[in-house]
Amino acid sequence: MKLVGMMGSPYVRRVAVSMRLMGLEHEHRQISVFRDTDEFRTINSVVKAPTLICENGEMIMDSSMILDYLESRVAPDRSLMPKDSAEHQKVLSLIGLGLAVCEKAVQLEYEYNKPVAYHYEPWQTRVTEQLHAALALLEKAAASANPWLATAQLSQADVTVAAAWRFTQFRVSHLVEVQRYTALAAYADQVEKLPEFVATPLK
Amino acid sequence: MKLVGMMGSPYVRRVAVSMRLMGLEHEHRQISVFRDTDEFRTINSVVKAPTLICENGEMIMDSSMILDYLESRVAPDRSLMPKDSAEHQKVLSLIGLGLAVCEKAVQLEYEYNKPVAYHYEPWQTRVTEQLHAALALLEKAAASANPWLATAQLSQADVTVAAAWRFTQFRVSHLVEVQRYTALAAYADQVEKLPEFVATPLK
Repeated sequence: MKLVGMMGSPYVRRVAVSMRLMGLEHEHRQISVFRDTDEFRTINSVVKAPTLICENGEMIMDSSMILDYLESRVAPDRSLMPKDSAEHQKVLSLIGLGLAVCEKAVQLEYEYNKPVAYHYEPWQTRVTEQLHAALALLEKAAASANPWLATAQLSQADVTVAAAWRFTQFRVSHLVEVQRYTALAAYADQVEKLPEFVATPLK
Repeated sequence: MKLVGMMGSPYVRRVAVSMRLMGLEHEHRQISVFRDTDEFRTINSVVKAPTLICENGEMIMDSSMILDYLESRVAPDRSLMPKDSAEHQKVLSLIGLGLAVCEKAVQLEYEYNKPVAYHYEPWQTRVTEQLHAALALLEKAAASANPWLATAQLSQADVTVAAAWRFTQFRVSHLVEVQRYTALAAYADQVEKLPEFVATPLK
């Protein structure tokens, strides 16, 4: 399998970290949808990261679809999705919040990458409020993490939420102050010490 | 269970149609993240649709996380995700493409909702190209649909792709001409005749 995309995307990073945690052998091609658009287009004409090229050549995009595929191939003891229904529900709820943080932070990153004359303040305000609402719910969840958010073992909720938090500090740190989310920041710092996270740094 | 959000979102619609196809009893609260922001905020502070309120009060957002939860509760013969690994892979690949169409069409809808002075042409061009690249891949898939895209029975690929296509015709039809995607349009027309689609019209 081949994973295509830059760690600067929280969606690519949640997949890359998950593949390491799952013990799935793969090649990782770090090319950018922005700087390497033409090269990316030869792999996936939609120019969307992450893209997974499966062993049989099939292409899957969208990090959640890729993770669904990977879960179908992983050894049962390496799965990041709990079988217990209450735990499964809690993990999905937290992933949804983590993905909301990713989406809003990415929208703001794109907005700030435009020339200043095109920054549309009502849109920025709305998206920033949504970002903080999702972070506030995750701050509550992190305050009772023990040490993981949802389950006795690390789950996909931990991977997605930690990747989402790290991305906010990488790209929109001027909007997301650590002092406002101390439990979430402390929790994410612990997760980032795992070797699978250390091996997939943002850059 | 309660599903919250307007059918004008392809993400809400893929969940609403799926719940009907799965035979899952639910209430559907059609309120808008834009027109009914304050009311929506009392249900989900992130103001993100679709939101699912589970029977135990847990909240799940993100259509793919909601569908994952629903799949864990559905009768096996009503599941929209095939168990066969090759079919499962194909369905995920097509859903990824359908979600790319949704994402790019929604981005363009939001862009066109801004005052004209804030329309940033390089961004619009890039996203429009991505939209057409995803549609071109789906046009190929639709050309060999028989009658469904991936499997002998209707699957989540059909729900997501048909909902994505319909949304392009609802919101960005000036960019997506039917003549360019005749197989996809004909395929989607058939899917839209299913009672579960007819019962969940865009408005």
